[in-house]
Amino acid sequence: MEKDSKSIKPIKNVPLVEQVEDHIMQYLKANKFKTGDALPKEIELAQNLGVSRNVAREALSRLRMLGIIESKKRKGMVISEPDLLSGVERVLDPDFLGEGTMQNIFELRLVLEVGMSDILFIRKKSKDIDILQDIVTRESQDPECTDDIKVRLAYEIEFHSHLYRMSRNNTLQRFQSMLLPVFHYMMEQEARLELKPKKGSISHQDLVDTIKNGTPRDFRENMREHLTPHYQKLIRQKS
Amino acid sequence: MEKDSKSIKPIKNVPLVEQVEDHIMQYLKANKFKTGDALPKEIELAQNLGVSRNVAREALSRLRMLGIIESKKRKGMVISEPDLLSGVERVLDPDFLGEGTMQNIFELRLVLEVGMSDILFIRKKSKDIDILQDIVTRESQDPECTDDIKVRLAYEIEFHSHLYRMSRNNTLQRFQSMLLPVFHYMMEQEARLELKPKKGSISHQDLVDTIKNGTPRDFRENMREHLTPHYQKLIRQKS
Repeated sequence: MEKDSKSIKPIKNVPLVEQVEDHIMQYLKANKFKTGDALPKEIELAQNLGVSRNVAREALSRLRMLGIIESKKRKGMVISEPDLLSGVERVLDPDFLGEGTMQNIFELRLVLEVGMSDILFIRKKSKDIDILQDIVTRESQDPECTDDIKVRLAYEIEFHSHLYRMSRNNTLQRFQSMLLPVFHYMMEQEARLELKPKKGSISHQDLVDTIKNGTPRDFRENMREHLTPHYQKLIRQKS
Repeated sequence: MEKDSKSIKPIKNVPLVEQVEDHIMQYLKANKFKTGDALPKEIELAQNLGVSRNVAREALSRLRMLGIIESKKRKGMVISEPDLLSGVERVLDPDFLGEGTMQNIFELRLVLEVGMSDILFIRKKSKDIDILQDIVTRESQDPECTDDIKVRLAYEIEFHSHLYRMSRNNTLQRFQSMLLPVFHYMMEQEARLELKPKKGSISHQDLVDTIKNGTPRDFRENMREHLTPHYQKLIRQKS
């Protein structure tokens, strides 16, 4: 008996627009719509679903936002190839994120940069090493770099951003550009601390040397060491 | 002169709904709206922006979808705390993703699992080790596990999913549940290959032992070894 009553799920109050959205998705899947295929007209969809045009339009707008459909001149609505991250990008404004979410995103960045080593080694080109070396050389010669946190932060971002670019993985790259505002915010917060976190013992120059002459394993462990100040923050938060 | 003409940007044809969405976002930011604050009514917004109620409603619907606002009973629309990934989840249906995007997502999974080692060690609880050990014990005793790819895949997913859960990072966890359909798809494709990829020399049991008695570094390198068949695929694709 207990099992039976547990299997009864509460009725969810799904808004009409979401129901319509789901119906359209089911319809597209059942009829094996492919990228570029034209959708029925808004008015037809509304009639077939038995809803108002306003509701159909709103559902279609949501699907457009998800990147599942797009409007083309003359052709009307067609299926487009959704990108993993379409629709997310504009959310990542620190003003609109809670502390918890920002912390999660910051951790994600630490995970990605330690984890991407093998992919960097598979895809690296000699041009990439030149670009990284150029950033590090400019950084080391810039007199403002020791005093001005903003200048230091700019080099930091330039260097790490190029690593994401080297991955030649669009999802990783878009991810990184989404994370940037949050990264900025967290770094500026850290800079304002009385007790500044100590720098890791591995510099950007060491990382360039490793990606040039080392192994994926070396780079992974050196990147982990480079990020030590941030990891120490996580360890402190735990205790 | 050349510089001047380069700085002229083409006029973008931004749809009215998106313009309204941007305006509302700007307004919320300028007036420092915080989580829980009530928004002006739809009709007021429409009047102030000089647009029809339909357009205002659609823009608000998009913001709702992005998780920036939510509708509350009695209170009307209020600011909510957006989650990094709200609005993305339903896109990750392999039927709607291109091969390139799926490949990117699969790589992302490899990056995350190698990179998350330190966070797992900071947050692991003895209960987690018990859960992982239980999965591995069931896997090793299941007679169907050698023959049936679906059974093997189920254990694979159960084991790796718990690692994401151990991170206690909501963004990572939601990410992983988003990636699951793609993961399934790629694994089934691999299973259909004539020449099956060789298993890595590190088993799930080895990984449990490492997380129990090893260091973050050991776990990271063992996880990398465990994922070797997938990394070999990337190396092959390159050449």
